[in-house]
Amino acid sequence: MKLLKTLLPAAALIALPVMGMAQEAEAAAPTMDEVGPYIFTTLLFLMAGFLVFFMAAGFAMLEAGLVRSKNVAMQLTKNIALFSIAAIMYWLVGFNTMYPGDFNGYFAIGGQTVLDAVGVSAADAALDYASVGSDFFFQLVFVAATASIVSGAVAERIKLWPFLAFVVVLTGLMYPISGSWQWGGGWLSEMGFSDFAGSTIVHSVGGWAALAGVIVLGPRLGKYKDGRVNPIPGSNLALATLGTFILWLGWFGFNGGSQLAMGTVGDVSDVSRIFANTNMAAAAGSVTALILTQILYKKVDLTMVLNGALAGLVSITAEPLAPTLFGALWIGAVGGVIVVFAIPFLDKLKIDDVVGAIPVHLFAGIWGTIAVIFYGEASLITQLIGIAAYGVFTFVGALILWYVLKLTVGIRVSEEEEINGLDMAELGMEAYPEFSKG
Amino acid sequence: MKLLKTLLPAAALIALPVMGMAQEAEAAAPTMDEVGPYIFTTLLFLMAGFLVFFMAAGFAMLEAGLVRSKNVAMQLTKNIALFSIAAIMYWLVGFNTMYPGDFNGYFAIGGQTVLDAVGVSAADAALDYASVGSDFFFQLVFVAATASIVSGAVAERIKLWPFLAFVVVLTGLMYPISGSWQWGGGWLSEMGFSDFAGSTIVHSVGGWAALAGVIVLGPRLGKYKDGRVNPIPGSNLALATLGTFILWLGWFGFNGGSQLAMGTVGDVSDVSRIFANTNMAAAAGSVTALILTQILYKKVDLTMVLNGALAGLVSITAEPLAPTLFGALWIGAVGGVIVVFAIPFLDKLKIDDVVGAIPVHLFAGIWGTIAVIFYGEASLITQLIGIAAYGVFTFVGALILWYVLKLTVGIRVSEEEEINGLDMAELGMEAYPEFSKG
Amino acid sequence: MKLLKTLLPAAALIALPVMGMAQEAEAAAPTMDEVGPYIFTTLLFLMAGFLVFFMAAGFAMLEAGLVRSKNVAMQLTKNIALFSIAAIMYWLVGFNTMYPGDFNGYFAIGGQTVLDAVGVSAADAALDYASVGSDFFFQLVFVAATASIVSGAVAERIKLWPFLAFVVVLTGLMYPISGSWQWGGGWLSEMGFSDFAGSTIVHSVGGWAALAGVIVLGPRLGKYKDGRVNPIPGSNLALATLGTFILWLGWFGFNGGSQLAMGTVGDVSDVSRIFANTNMAAAAGSVTALILTQILYKKVDLTMVLNGALAGLVSITAEPLAPTLFGALWIGAVGGVIVVFAIPFLDKLKIDDVVGAIPVHLFAGIWGTIAVIFYGEASLITQLIGIAAYGVFTFVGALILWYVLKLTVGIRVSEEEEINGLDMAELGMEAYPEFSKG
Repeated sequence: MKLLKTLLPAAALIALPVMGMAQEAEAAAPTMDEVGPYIFTTLLFLMAGFLVFFMAAGFAMLEAGLVRSKNVAMQLTKNIALFSIAAIMYWLVGFNTMYPGDFNGYFAIGGQTVLDAVGVSAADAALDYASVGSDFFFQLVFVAATASIVSGAVAERIKLWPFLAFVVVLTGLMYPISGSWQWGGGWLSEMGFSDFAGSTIVHSVGGWAALAGVIVLGPRLGKYKDGRVNPIPGSNLALATLGTFILWLGWFGFNGGSQLAMGTVGDVSDVSRIFANTNMAAAAGSVTALILTQILYKKVDLTMVLNGALAGLVSITAEPLAPTLFGALWIGAVGGVIVVFAIPFLDKLKIDDVVGAIPVHLFAGIWGTIAVIFYGEASLITQLIGIAAYGVFTFVGALILWYVLKLTVGIRVSEEEEINGLDMAELGMEAYPEFSKG
Repeated sequence: MKLLKTLLPAAALIALPVMGMAQEAEAAAPTMDEVGPYIFTTLLFLMAGFLVFFMAAGFAMLEAGLVRSKNVAMQLTKNIALFSIAAIMYWLVGFNTMYPGDFNGYFAIGGQTVLDAVGVSAADAALDYASVGSDFFFQLVFVAATASIVSGAVAERIKLWPFLAFVVVLTGLMYPISGSWQWGGGWLSEMGFSDFAGSTIVHSVGGWAALAGVIVLGPRLGKYKDGRVNPIPGSNLALATLGTFILWLGWFGFNGGSQLAMGTVGDVSDVSRIFANTNMAAAAGSVTALILTQILYKKVDLTMVLNGALAGLVSITAEPLAPTLFGALWIGAVGGVIVVFAIPFLDKLKIDDVVGAIPVHLFAGIWGTIAVIFYGEASLITQLIGIAAYGVFTFVGALILWYVLKLTVGIRVSEEEEINGLDMAELGMEAYPEFSKG
Repeated sequence: MKLLKTLLPAAALIALPVMGMAQEAEAAAPTMDEVGPYIFTTLLFLMAGFLVFFMAAGFAMLEAGLVRSKNVAMQLTKNIALFSIAAIMYWLVGFNTMYPGDFNGYFAIGGQTVLDAVGVSAADAALDYASVGSDFFFQLVFVAATASIVSGAVAERIKLWPFLAFVVVLTGLMYPISGSWQWGGGWLSEMGFSDFAGSTIVHSVGGWAALAGVIVLGPRLGKYKDGRVNPIPGSNLALATLGTFILWLGWFGFNGGSQLAMGTVGDVSDVSRIFANTNMAAAAGSVTALILTQILYKKVDLTMVLNGALAGLVSITAEPLAPTLFGALWIGAVGGVIVVFAIPFLDKLKIDDVVGAIPVHLFAGIWGTIAVIFYGEASLITQLIGIAAYGVFTFVGALILWYVLKLTVGIRVSEEEEINGLDMAELGMEAYPEFSKG
């Protein structure tokens, strides 16, 4: 790779006389005024993209930390597998289904993603936007997040392969089709729906799919017995905390990259606003859960604090730009409140969501989408229509899909396998073979 | 800063007509020559900011790994809580206390941070610097680091809420007030004190606050018994090592971002120098501790190696730009030496610093601030005055605050709670419920 | 650090007259057209550099997760020590041995690395390339990766100090000398050998050195007994998975940064292609191992899936730019196939590679280097010559070095030490003192 260094300079130096600007040598080389914004925005997608990519590790650690040790290897397997499958499906069909260009944004299926040519010239590039590769990469890591949300909720009793089959459909079809309604310039965007980085389009979609899954699956053995809710503590809160911090980190890319531009003073400053607001909402969600659990239970609950931070992040995702820092604070704080009350509420309904994904991603996602009306230009009605549209489409679609899987291949492991743990049953290995007591 | 923000752009706009450049189609669009540096520097703050943000995870993992398993959940809780509180306090009062513009840099209290308007125009932006949001975000993650330093030292016996009360005052008032003496253009900066990225302003301040805390708290039960020092090994050296690597990673942002500019050849090259020097100092601190512990104890001590790397990083933080790579090497190596000798020395004084935060951040921080004289232009006297000023202000202030907390709400858990572990006592949960033997 | 902000502007304002463009005030200030590419490319190296730096944490976690708990602290120690040593050796001699400018690319030894001057002017900077500091930092983190590959393979029975002695020679001499053949503009690059980001130059070199090491060391006690292969499961698959995700993240920097330029539409778009292709190859390797292990063993093997992803990454590293996304998919998938078959194959040969480093880095590295012929312009013959040249030089050199170490200081711990674990034997500490049962 280094060869260029020694070869290019010679030519460049020869050409660098009199007038200044090395660029001038190459006749009609485009100026920075022409190409700077393209470079900056492409760079934004790459940087935000790798941050959001890393959220895959965040979800994996969060979920591995919140399940029992006998299911940790399975949870890890699901997380790396779902990311990989999402990457392939989104290339094969998802990206061009979601962003079809001349497509109307209802239902259609696109083909494979094709990147810009190697060394694409300024004349052939989308100078007003960014390189296809960076855009594809950035969008791809979003869809993986949606699938990760599901994996946490249905943990500790779902079979591996049916889960992965669900991921294939979710990431290849369901998410891209509904995503095109808004981000593909479809009917919801025309109606004025507003969801900056995806409180609804990404997070509540993941939450709806998860909700359908846990309903069809049923709760874990022993979770609701004799009319009582039996807490099943996670096996490794250090990993869960690490996962939360990684997700928080990734969210700067998630929300910041959704500005979709970084080549002007206004755009880069907006990305900055988004970073500051995103951080504030997470902090507010975390502190709110901290204080609330102390008041309600007389003891702080770390997993609630972690989920509070995540709920703050989901809440600000629909509009991370327009609010003031105080706006981000109270929007995030409400997210924290939602989580603290929703987690026991779901338990009352015997909806067994292992990691709290439904409160965090679905409930706080709905809240965030509504909160847009306080700072953005969207109307409450339009926001509710959008929320409902994604909810009906995803929940019904997922419900059907889960039932089909249940009736055909079955989606739940046997009682014995569940008791022994999915790691030994489905993988034949343990995550912590020298420590585990199950 | 506000001044410039309103003046500079006006001049720039008036002058913009006539010449070439594609942008001209859009009437008065600013050129890349005008706005490029602003975009680059804002991007530097965002990038460096998310790296330093991630140090919160680094501290959390380092500390979770170095305490006993019965206190891990508490240590994690403190780390996410302190970051969240710092984020809120720094917005509420800290940032504008520290960087007030027209303030003299002694004592004053600022108000809430206000970001640039959405889509701010070049005319309204601080074109010579960076967007407010990026600057605020970058500074905010620094103050959180200061608080993290304290949490490690006082671990395993301090109550949660009094600790968090301390964090409120440290991050909202103490750190911003003393920080303004130098980075707010106050009396120390006028005197010629030099502390590029905060060996003193961030790290020794955290170290002084920690030292006051451990003195008021007293050592952990059983640490010093019958005239002997009883080692209390950390429960998870894998997490401690991960934390160290994350901190090392974050330090590229910590020191690199402190260049405060990236839009010229000189600035971006200086950021590069800083990256290279920062890495070298860490490597030198690590290798020094490796060799020294082998010589002194006939066995390498991994926790010393980790702290050696961190001490190398703290040592180079006061001047990561000016030294040659060899300079960075020996400055970092001295940091490693300090840690290896200071940790047992503190134990002789019965100062029980759980993670070695005082040697790493206070002692190596002082060393780094002195080392500036070998490569920078600062005088030894001025450096010592600065070190002493931060020491006296922070140590005395912290001592008073810890005592007030001790006399009012109490800061230490009961003996029984300490023996059983803070996790069960204060949180009612365990970090590793399936493994822990305490 | 913030002081500059308030002082500089004043001067700038005074100088900002009539014509516009703040830059113009400083007489011959270079334009963005002149310096933009330099800034962007330097930024690419910094960003890619910190991502690749973080791979050190990835290797550490992967290896700590795949060894038994009694050897975890040692594995962590080796990883932080090897990175630190690599950093020092590469400065002392490696960088200038590898990239000598006017050197012929066979054998020569360079001196210390010297960075650009502080605040280097555009006139003194390599405007067609990037700052020396960023380039040095980027190349330095590559050499550390090579050493990390070795540490995983020889784990659980090698002595600490002889291993580190090997690292000194590998990172200071062997890797830089052979690296100069291609990236230093040497004989292989003149012959037309193609290895974009180092499938051969980095990964297979690490693999050859590892292979020599495990042959000289011999297998772990009990691994091959009574004609059977006894699986020795890793102690913490959560950390191993985390390590894999961190490596995957770092690979965006590894391959993306190897574009060596980001300041034009073509270059930044190429970096984007590389990101997308790199991700695809990893996903394909992972899914392939997932499906193959299900078919072959009727159970998915998580460690195979992790190694499949890594093999996909190594496979695409020799040519991450030219292939289409489908090309990246099948190249990565073949990498996954290689791993699934090569790991048991090595066991048949009683070559005991603890973490699968040889299949992942050597075999997939060879495959990736051959695969270049399908999309690049290299000929099969030249690629094979390159592969053989690196193989012979590194394998023979490493074999000699390992033997010399074996005959002089000895490289393997005693049987008793191996049984008790290297942590207690060589470090006198445990990674998980409260949990470990060994």
